[in-house]
Amino acid sequence: MGATIDLNADLGEGFGRWTLGDDAALLAIVSSANVACGFHAGDASIMRSVCEQAVARGVRIGAQVGYRDLPGFGRRYIAYQPEQLTAEIMYQLGALDAFARAAGDRVRYVKPHGALYNRIVHDEEQARAVVEAVVAYDAALPLLGLPGSAVLRLAERAGLTALPEAFPDRGYTREGTLVPRTHPKALLDDADEIAARAVAIAVDGRVPAIDGRMVETPARSLCVHGDHPSAVRNAGVVRGALASAGVSVEPFT
Amino acid sequence: MGATIDLNADLGEGFGRWTLGDDAALLAIVSSANVACGFHAGDASIMRSVCEQAVARGVRIGAQVGYRDLPGFGRRYIAYQPEQLTAEIMYQLGALDAFARAAGDRVRYVKPHGALYNRIVHDEEQARAVVEAVVAYDAALPLLGLPGSAVLRLAERAGLTALPEAFPDRGYTREGTLVPRTHPKALLDDADEIAARAVAIAVDGRVPAIDGRMVETPARSLCVHGDHPSAVRNAGVVRGALASAGVSVEPFT
Amino acid sequence: MGATIDLNADLGEGFGRWTLGDDAALLAIVSSANVACGFHAGDASIMRSVCEQAVARGVRIGAQVGYRDLPGFGRRYIAYQPEQLTAEIMYQLGALDAFARAAGDRVRYVKPHGALYNRIVHDEEQARAVVEAVVAYDAALPLLGLPGSAVLRLAERAGLTALPEAFPDRGYTREGTLVPRTHPKALLDDADEIAARAVAIAVDGRVPAIDGRMVETPARSLCVHGDHPSAVRNAGVVRGALASAGVSVEPFT
Amino acid sequence: MGATIDLNADLGEGFGRWTLGDDAALLAIVSSANVACGFHAGDASIMRSVCEQAVARGVRIGAQVGYRDLPGFGRRYIAYQPEQLTAEIMYQLGALDAFARAAGDRVRYVKPHGALYNRIVHDEEQARAVVEAVVAYDAALPLLGLPGSAVLRLAERAGLTALPEAFPDRGYTREGTLVPRTHPKALLDDADEIAARAVAIAVDGRVPAIDGRMVETPARSLCVHGDHPSAVRNAGVVRGALASAGVSVEPFT
Repeated sequence: MGATIDLNADLGEGFGRWTLGDDAALLAIVSSANVACGFHAGDASIMRSVCEQAVARGVRIGAQVGYRDLPGFGRRYIAYQPEQLTAEIMYQLGALDAFARAAGDRVRYVKPHGALYNRIVHDEEQARAVVEAVVAYDAALPLLGLPGSAVLRLAERAGLTALPEAFPDRGYTREGTLVPRTHPKALLDDADEIAARAVAIAVDGRVPAIDGRMVETPARSLCVHGDHPSAVRNAGVVRGALASAGVSVEPFT
Repeated sequence: MGATIDLNADLGEGFGRWTLGDDAALLAIVSSANVACGFHAGDASIMRSVCEQAVARGVRIGAQVGYRDLPGFGRRYIAYQPEQLTAEIMYQLGALDAFARAAGDRVRYVKPHGALYNRIVHDEEQARAVVEAVVAYDAALPLLGLPGSAVLRLAERAGLTALPEAFPDRGYTREGTLVPRTHPKALLDDADEIAARAVAIAVDGRVPAIDGRMVETPARSLCVHGDHPSAVRNAGVVRGALASAGVSVEPFT
Repeated sequence: MGATIDLNADLGEGFGRWTLGDDAALLAIVSSANVACGFHAGDASIMRSVCEQAVARGVRIGAQVGYRDLPGFGRRYIAYQPEQLTAEIMYQLGALDAFARAAGDRVRYVKPHGALYNRIVHDEEQARAVVEAVVAYDAALPLLGLPGSAVLRLAERAGLTALPEAFPDRGYTREGTLVPRTHPKALLDDADEIAARAVAIAVDGRVPAIDGRMVETPARSLCVHGDHPSAVRNAGVVRGALASAGVSVEPFT
Repeated sequence: MGATIDLNADLGEGFGRWTLGDDAALLAIVSSANVACGFHAGDASIMRSVCEQAVARGVRIGAQVGYRDLPGFGRRYIAYQPEQLTAEIMYQLGALDAFARAAGDRVRYVKPHGALYNRIVHDEEQARAVVEAVVAYDAALPLLGLPGSAVLRLAERAGLTALPEAFPDRGYTREGTLVPRTHPKALLDDADEIAARAVAIAVDGRVPAIDGRMVETPARSLCVHGDHPSAVRNAGVVRGALASAGVSVEPFT
């Protein structure tokens, strides 16, 4: 029996007249689409179109929920009151679900975006606010996040399905955490190296750290990027390498 | 057997730091709450709170969908592409439904707001865009609108439940249409007169036009206003007069 | 003595994470930059950067004022109250002027954008609102618009400098008006043809209409487009053709 | 010779359909109006109207600049890139100046709002971003802030006029800093006590701390609040008490 892994990527991150990334190309590669919900990116027309395309291709729709911050693309920490954050995430979940259901499926999982994603690795208050939103909206929805993060721990405690993901194009410390973006080895750009790491994570659950030692990377999904042309190419190389290694790419949900 | 009528009002029309109207007072009066969905007014926290209060009181939750126009409070016509309008209305429906369902009920009907409400009385393209949104989201949702409007006609043709409403505080022409707002008799403010008209509409389906003759006003719901203190008082007087006349106030859905 | 003409183009139309067009390439071609002011596109950082680049290159900064409509990119008519429109245009003028002045120059002219540009060709109320904003802000600022439009007529009557522009890549009727965008000959895309028309307008003040006859096109500026790669190329061909024809490209202000 | 002091208050903090505070009442009390610039509150029409009223009354116009956060009323910290913050503050300064100048005066000072005000008490990076905006826009503009704050220190170092203000309705520690809002004595609401403290600050430059000892409060301006009816009343009582004590209320600029 061969290994299986999920591939996820951010989609639908344009807004009005502005486009970002190549949604159609990514939908041919990934098994799970993190669809922007209009708060950091995305608008209703884009959301509808991406949901229809995802369903047509059998790609799962996930809610890429974020801070309400179009000017900052959701990449700036905002000091929300937790109740506001919970309500805004419920709002985004419902909005995306409208399009997912109209397209014949439904929202299948939740993946926070950008500064929110990073914040709830350690901020328990905002992590709890996210967990409460998912519990209030639909406690059957899995939550995708960083292994070892506060949000996955709190999600599990609340009875949610907490799914760790890995980043084949990011450097890892020997403790298994991501190397800070300021570090020269934070981001890999060689497609073959990224693909080899993706295979290692999918098959062995391990990846080489920046000091060369192998570290554990328990992951139900691999996150690939698609916001510039070479990123889409790299994602395609990852997909090809997984196939060559006998790894089946399948949605986790 | 006594007559029954529904009373509807706009609620949840604050935004962030700003409040508007007295939601708690209105929820004690009406049977149906048109809850703003965040595009012309309302934010996620307000929507959540209003939904919880409405469910606690047995008041039905309707989606008060509008143009995306916080600066203009949805009161300015915007020349949407119809597909954009359809998508934005689906978005609003899904967002509100998240809170309605978390509160233990669900969105029960749709009532367009402001400039959109007025536009789809005659604009067939935008009216069709609204109808398509409801059909795509949930074809079982009734649509509340102006008797004789394009949107109700198209809604019926599309198989939706199209429900006419009446306005006891607005002047009517002898053709049964609303007197334009520029007319001196466009808006009534005497509570007793408004209440008497509400009873007449509920019991007889008729109201005196500005020339004194009675005109037909087929209505499944009476719209009352609540955006200033005397409006809330008037709504209370309407409710009391209906009770005195033996009219039971009940949700239409 | 050779002829002179101004070349203007829209710049700074990205927003946050999103980019649009190639501002640097256009700044090497045009003499006047219509800089978006944050209402239909553009944000403070983009405005600051574009103003600095424009001043460094000796390109004049114009205020590309528009409807407050980021989701619609200012391309949808909005039924403003005229006082609101006047105030919003003053706001945009002041905001852009902050960056123009910090960069060592100042806003030199006003050119309305998108749906507003088109609307004030015939809508006297909105045209007057625009004129009043310029008068209130700085009556020395010229207003760039469509020849024969209501806004240029009202601007002149109010004592403003009203400057007509021409579009070498748009088809003209034999009456000298632009062919509607739905017409097959509305938009030209052959660079050499566009360039030849630019020269004809600059040298002779005339352009061939769609029926082949020459029509008058009084213009103090030629508008070139830059929102996709071939548009930038075409603009460069126009600039080269003007040089070859001995036409000097110079700001009108 | 009697003492003189400036009274400042936040004005123009409505948005579109929503109102907040009683601008007309406050303009009869204060000598300096901190006018919201559209980022946390205020819109172009409100800004224009407030500027006209302020000039008519001889009240100085200050730019109440804030984070771009209408949903949060500028009360939530946002982790801006400093260059973005500088640019957004320049944008707000220019926008307000358009209305101040059209009304016959100009922006006379800068006072940051809400979470930005609080953040730059200690955050040097954001404080520097604010200072750089004022320097770039107009280095002659005074900056109003909290005594001892990073922003006033950096402003002074950059050659700006840095003006400390005091809060007669806030509790002070014996170190002369404001008592945190969570403390029971953080906020005073007795009008006579507030007024007595205002007189003490204006006349003696001292105020009783929460332990009863007098602490120094060097202040060129007293901040009064106006966002609810009793606040406006209190501000009037402060103004009356200053007059009775022979303190002349005059703008600091």
